[in-house]
Amino acid sequence: MSSIDRRLEINVERFKADFDTLSQIGATNNDGVHRPALSQNHLKARAWFRERVKAADLVFQVDQAGNHSAILPCQKNANTTLLIGSHLDSVPYGGRFDGALGVLAALETLRVINECNINVPINLEAIDFTDEEGTLVNFMGSFALTGKLDKEGLDNPRGGRKELENGLNRAGLAKSDILDARREPKTLAGYLELHVEQGPRLERAGADIGVVSSIAGISSYHVKFIGREDHAATIPMDDRLDAGLGASAFYLAAHQLVLRNYPECYVNVGNICYEPASFNIVPRKATLSLEFRAPNSELMQHLRDALINKAKDAAEEHKLGIEIELLGDCAPATMDEQVQELIVSSADHLGLKSLSLRSGPGHDAQAFADLCPTGMIFAPSIAGASHSPREKTSWNDCVNSANVLFRTTLQFISSKL
Amino acid sequence: MSSIDRRLEINVERFKADFDTLSQIGATNNDGVHRPALSQNHLKARAWFRERVKAADLVFQVDQAGNHSAILPCQKNANTTLLIGSHLDSVPYGGRFDGALGVLAALETLRVINECNINVPINLEAIDFTDEEGTLVNFMGSFALTGKLDKEGLDNPRGGRKELENGLNRAGLAKSDILDARREPKTLAGYLELHVEQGPRLERAGADIGVVSSIAGISSYHVKFIGREDHAATIPMDDRLDAGLGASAFYLAAHQLVLRNYPECYVNVGNICYEPASFNIVPRKATLSLEFRAPNSELMQHLRDALINKAKDAAEEHKLGIEIELLGDCAPATMDEQVQELIVSSADHLGLKSLSLRSGPGHDAQAFADLCPTGMIFAPSIAGASHSPREKTSWNDCVNSANVLFRTTLQFISSKL
Repeated sequence: MSSIDRRLEINVERFKADFDTLSQIGATNNDGVHRPALSQNHLKARAWFRERVKAADLVFQVDQAGNHSAILPCQKNANTTLLIGSHLDSVPYGGRFDGALGVLAALETLRVINECNINVPINLEAIDFTDEEGTLVNFMGSFALTGKLDKEGLDNPRGGRKELENGLNRAGLAKSDILDARREPKTLAGYLELHVEQGPRLERAGADIGVVSSIAGISSYHVKFIGREDHAATIPMDDRLDAGLGASAFYLAAHQLVLRNYPECYVNVGNICYEPASFNIVPRKATLSLEFRAPNSELMQHLRDALINKAKDAAEEHKLGIEIELLGDCAPATMDEQVQELIVSSADHLGLKSLSLRSGPGHDAQAFADLCPTGMIFAPSIAGASHSPREKTSWNDCVNSANVLFRTTLQFISSKL
Repeated sequence: MSSIDRRLEINVERFKADFDTLSQIGATNNDGVHRPALSQNHLKARAWFRERVKAADLVFQVDQAGNHSAILPCQKNANTTLLIGSHLDSVPYGGRFDGALGVLAALETLRVINECNINVPINLEAIDFTDEEGTLVNFMGSFALTGKLDKEGLDNPRGGRKELENGLNRAGLAKSDILDARREPKTLAGYLELHVEQGPRLERAGADIGVVSSIAGISSYHVKFIGREDHAATIPMDDRLDAGLGASAFYLAAHQLVLRNYPECYVNVGNICYEPASFNIVPRKATLSLEFRAPNSELMQHLRDALINKAKDAAEEHKLGIEIELLGDCAPATMDEQVQELIVSSADHLGLKSLSLRSGPGHDAQAFADLCPTGMIFAPSIAGASHSPREKTSWNDCVNSANVLFRTTLQFISSKL
């Protein structure tokens, strides 16, 4: 560690200017951003990122999954790379910090290292992953890069086939090439990510920096209840086969189940679609967008079984058919112990109070945890707001957490010298 | 009555040819039709109707609300008109009988009367009303003609402003002119309509013809539950303000309420829309398309109050805001006693068994009941299927009911001689 200049820090002015400019791309009128993966707004943000990479004299690269990278190559042609990443896409009408903070801090980290002519024994790569939010395909970019994406996931995308096709066309990407973005695991020296916490724990504990110990597993499904369409005022009401009733009953039961029996887990129904969708027709089909999370594999399996049983119960109670379609699965992931120690010591060095915590939300880091030393840094979220224009992190915390990422990176490469 | 030729009947071959041709316009691959109001398919059906009117040497007319008419003018320039109507639009992916049967039977009635040079003391008008199904604006055509449509209903259409605008543009109609379709009530000599029952009662009773005694009142609302959007895995689950939970709880409660306490009434939630609609976001807003019906005004008001209370209870239980927006209201309507008697005697004359019944579904006839003598004839629906491609009426029943409409019309005009 002695080789690292103790005074080195990121360029706060440049970092702030970048953040403010990026926040205007896809900005909504309530301080949020609307940059769903591969939308026009998202592609504008990526085009801007490309220009910033080139302006910094870093190597710019796009892979077959659309991941955008700034690369600072090792002077000695090393064949391993430390990736420092996050994402520029947002959920629909989301906030300006989620993903963006991590990408800009990674870029700033590479710029300072480059400017200071620090000796890098491995390649450094600041990477913006495609569709972290799963608007089209869950973790499309990081899963493609780590070989965790399969053809079926692309053929049956949770955002819809047509929507994926349109997005790929807009971005100039070919579906048939995406899996070729895979990299050999032996080329991955490590993975670091800075992200906003998206919850209230750091703020409540008065901590400056979160050191992620593990990331919850996450599964997404389409649960389809299938009844019969009828005129809403002819068939006696108790003769109906109302798909919407099954969907509602399942929703309430699933929510109660997790609240009562799975305190460490989460379940969400983010959307319901009826077919047909008309005032005076009993819905034949109701499709729920279901997502659930658990901190470890055992709980994940328990919860999966319990939720599927609840769905089947609701279908049976309302005399409906049911189709349960798995759309995406991401196993719970443990962060590297040594990387966690580097993050803690970086925070200590900067006089920042750190706190170890588990992540409920999924992150691109999950894809790397079983392949290379992986670590995540969290910045506090004011009031825990997330996936909303209300999402906010104080500028002071943005700078502090970016400096922790920068210093963790320096320590990581120093350990490779 | 003695002046009516007892042997006169409709031209079954021509009626069948018309029915088969019309069924192909907007046909789906499962024997249904998809002709939502003012869609391309619907406008094609209307263009075909216009040609059939012209081919029959009847006067063709379109009014400001887009209602299409075949007119057989009175030889003596009478200033009152007997309207015989129904509609050529369908619900999305509906059946081929609903509305179409009544329009074709009305046209056939006018053709036979014209061909036989029967003395008509009033004008006869076979009319195809715009948007009976309320895809855009509930009963747009018949409500405009009877002065029951108001500006607010057009400014806040249940099918959406943009959708209404697009539909009117396609049809070459101007929103600002629609209310001018109103006719003076004193010009209305009466209103007759043949329609499929859409329920199983005639079939179950072994009856050939339904004589409608009254039509249920119907109200439609948007019920909006408003919570807070949050990331699905950061805020503790019991801290969420999940609009979807309120919507589901209300749906189940409303269904139970009507099943238990309102056996003569109907309630339906035909659609739910979430905002945002993403797997990993707790929905901020859930908008339900709610419709309910009752056979008389007193029950209608009781049911309205009870449903609104259930919605408020669900909002309160889940700590949500609520907005309840009335989209359309149609009072229960009683059919004219004398017209009912004409229908019964027409059925008797043809050796058909008739049954008096109430209509749950709304019909254009509702708009006329308080303005002129109004009557409705129902044809049996096989298995009661309705608003579905499964909808069917035997061809024999189609012919019988069209002949009852024809003979009822003859009796009606005969009574005016």
